[in-house]
Amino acid sequence: MAETSKRINGIAASPIRKLAPLAEKAKARGVKVYHLNIGQPDIRTPEVAIEALRRIDRTVLEYSPSQGFLSLREKIAVYYSRYGMDYSPDQIIVTSGGSEAVLFSFLACMDPGDEIITTDPTYANYIAFAAAAGVKVKTILTRIEDNFALPPVEEFEALITPATKAILICNPNNPTGSLYTAAEMQMLAEIVRRHDLFLFSDEVYREFIYGDAEYVSAGHLEGVDDNVVILDSFSKRYSECGIRIGAVVTRNRSVAEGVLKLGQARLSPPLLGQIVAEASCSVGREYLDPVINEYGHRRNVLVDGLKSIPGVVVSVPSGSFYVIAKLPVDDADRFCAWCLSDFEYDGETVMMAPASGFYFTPGAGRSEVRIAYVLETKSLEKAVLLLSKALEKYRSL
Amino acid sequence: MAETSKRINGIAASPIRKLAPLAEKAKARGVKVYHLNIGQPDIRTPEVAIEALRRIDRTVLEYSPSQGFLSLREKIAVYYSRYGMDYSPDQIIVTSGGSEAVLFSFLACMDPGDEIITTDPTYANYIAFAAAAGVKVKTILTRIEDNFALPPVEEFEALITPATKAILICNPNNPTGSLYTAAEMQMLAEIVRRHDLFLFSDEVYREFIYGDAEYVSAGHLEGVDDNVVILDSFSKRYSECGIRIGAVVTRNRSVAEGVLKLGQARLSPPLLGQIVAEASCSVGREYLDPVINEYGHRRNVLVDGLKSIPGVVVSVPSGSFYVIAKLPVDDADRFCAWCLSDFEYDGETVMMAPASGFYFTPGAGRSEVRIAYVLETKSLEKAVLLLSKALEKYRSL
Repeated sequence: MAETSKRINGIAASPIRKLAPLAEKAKARGVKVYHLNIGQPDIRTPEVAIEALRRIDRTVLEYSPSQGFLSLREKIAVYYSRYGMDYSPDQIIVTSGGSEAVLFSFLACMDPGDEIITTDPTYANYIAFAAAAGVKVKTILTRIEDNFALPPVEEFEALITPATKAILICNPNNPTGSLYTAAEMQMLAEIVRRHDLFLFSDEVYREFIYGDAEYVSAGHLEGVDDNVVILDSFSKRYSECGIRIGAVVTRNRSVAEGVLKLGQARLSPPLLGQIVAEASCSVGREYLDPVINEYGHRRNVLVDGLKSIPGVVVSVPSGSFYVIAKLPVDDADRFCAWCLSDFEYDGETVMMAPASGFYFTPGAGRSEVRIAYVLETKSLEKAVLLLSKALEKYRSL
Repeated sequence: MAETSKRINGIAASPIRKLAPLAEKAKARGVKVYHLNIGQPDIRTPEVAIEALRRIDRTVLEYSPSQGFLSLREKIAVYYSRYGMDYSPDQIIVTSGGSEAVLFSFLACMDPGDEIITTDPTYANYIAFAAAAGVKVKTILTRIEDNFALPPVEEFEALITPATKAILICNPNNPTGSLYTAAEMQMLAEIVRRHDLFLFSDEVYREFIYGDAEYVSAGHLEGVDDNVVILDSFSKRYSECGIRIGAVVTRNRSVAEGVLKLGQARLSPPLLGQIVAEASCSVGREYLDPVINEYGHRRNVLVDGLKSIPGVVVSVPSGSFYVIAKLPVDDADRFCAWCLSDFEYDGETVMMAPASGFYFTPGAGRSEVRIAYVLETKSLEKAVLLLSKALEKYRSL
């Protein structure tokens, strides 16, 4: 029998996928499950965006240009200009979600055997796309005790070999909630310039920044125009994950051309998603501000709640809508499973993502979980109570 | 400066892309251009499918399951059963267009350095996806004189090495319009069984068969359940290329799992496209029959017209909506460019796709063009007249 590829073996099944059947069983028993494991925002998509679909007056749902509609790319350029970044429409290639932006950037910039450096923990799907591209991942450990700040330059340089082609960050970070400081971003700029590397910067959570933290995009860095490749998406910004519209944004002409070649091979990004995305661009701060305020409030409720549980260490997230918590358990995978299979309190329990699914280093983060604060505050408060009761019971077993 | 990947260099720019600026200039001069170069059907998308968008009653355009909605996969299974093929919903993974079905199948089944055999000429984007996957393409020449039939088994076996992992066909074929016979399909079944290869079968033109030709899908072949991977798409079937909904259909569980791993990494296929695709499944022969009849009529008009031009050799297409014509010119690339830059007849001209863009063997098909019959018959008749006048003038230069 013909065998599937070895590269596919490099893609581990997420621990969340192993928990899903347990959650189903808990629900079948009548237990209410609070989902702290998912990144699907409960925020409404802008009405004007859905209205654009209802008003569609096409008779043929035809291909759109491979690089995306010019009108959409122009609006994305205007959006970037509001963040003080100057990109022209031909420096923007519309993709089928941020996921395709990651995959196409990897394929356009790296060959099989090349190496990429990213943080640990990291967004698990980067590992899958690197495996798809035949690229070797090296990770640099960030620690909950340091609030997942980037380690000093020496730790990066110790990983760089002649095969290293790129550094990849997610900023604001999924899964840690970190927002990198101007100093951290400047350090990365110097590294990629000195070693001739690409800097892939996944900025899909750009809007989701809380408090007074300053936002420094990779697109703000000077002297690294040819190194920086921004990976973007409409998914989280406008709560429209299902439309699958993202973008590769870069001043490096060869990269833009390479990504477009792949874009031409797949013919076109989603037509309908582009219609929704373009309509969403007309939405202003009146939509986003209440959303960000709501997330900021949820973050405070969650972090304060977690801190009040004995033995729990929690990082303080400045962005995205995730936080990593270190629990007083040896094996968060087992604890998370137990919460679904053997625990309930007043007929309710919690589902969390074991952080092991986000760590590349074997054994790292065994006591940690990622918690998404995409539920309303009342549910978050309830979930924190359930977690505290679950820990109490689990530790007394 | 960091260099882009070598794999990207393996993706040649299509000759069509070089012609596009010439077509723009011709239009700017006021010349009407008949587009015989494109595969964008002018047929209306089913009204019920567009109506499904207008009636959308969601407030959040959220992620859908990575394998696609179960309700859609069930409908696809029913569709296959009408063709006498028995597939369960878990043997179907919904993709972002047929393009993603090709890319993900390649990635799931082949590693860098593996080899794939396909016909020459072939759909150019296969070459791009093979390059993306780091896979080496070997081609088997099919000839206009043989109506692009598959060569005998010995020619395939001469190409097979220990690195060969798969044979890829497009049936009905883009760009040749060939429909493979039961005997040809049986030969492929025997080859892939004997040599433990995958048989990728791109069947996105399955509906577009003219005359009495029998349709044999790779899914009909016996004893090769683990070898066959069907690549499918809603694009052409319902004239909805822009929705980007395709599928990988296979009884090989490891392949389905591998494709799904990649599907999970990219989170979900387009939500809106799935809504349109699912609504389209309710459309029956009352939509398709007139479409196929219309294409069949166009085919006859085009082929008869081409045959009437002195020196033109034309294959007889049994399926898809393309035909390859051999013109009495040395270099069809140059002739197609000349038609746009230097020729007009009563203020009109034609744009055709030079077949060189579909041949992998350097120099093959230099005198050939691919003609899509997606224009209405009156326009096709006009285009044939323009081609005959252009050839007359070109050969007298």
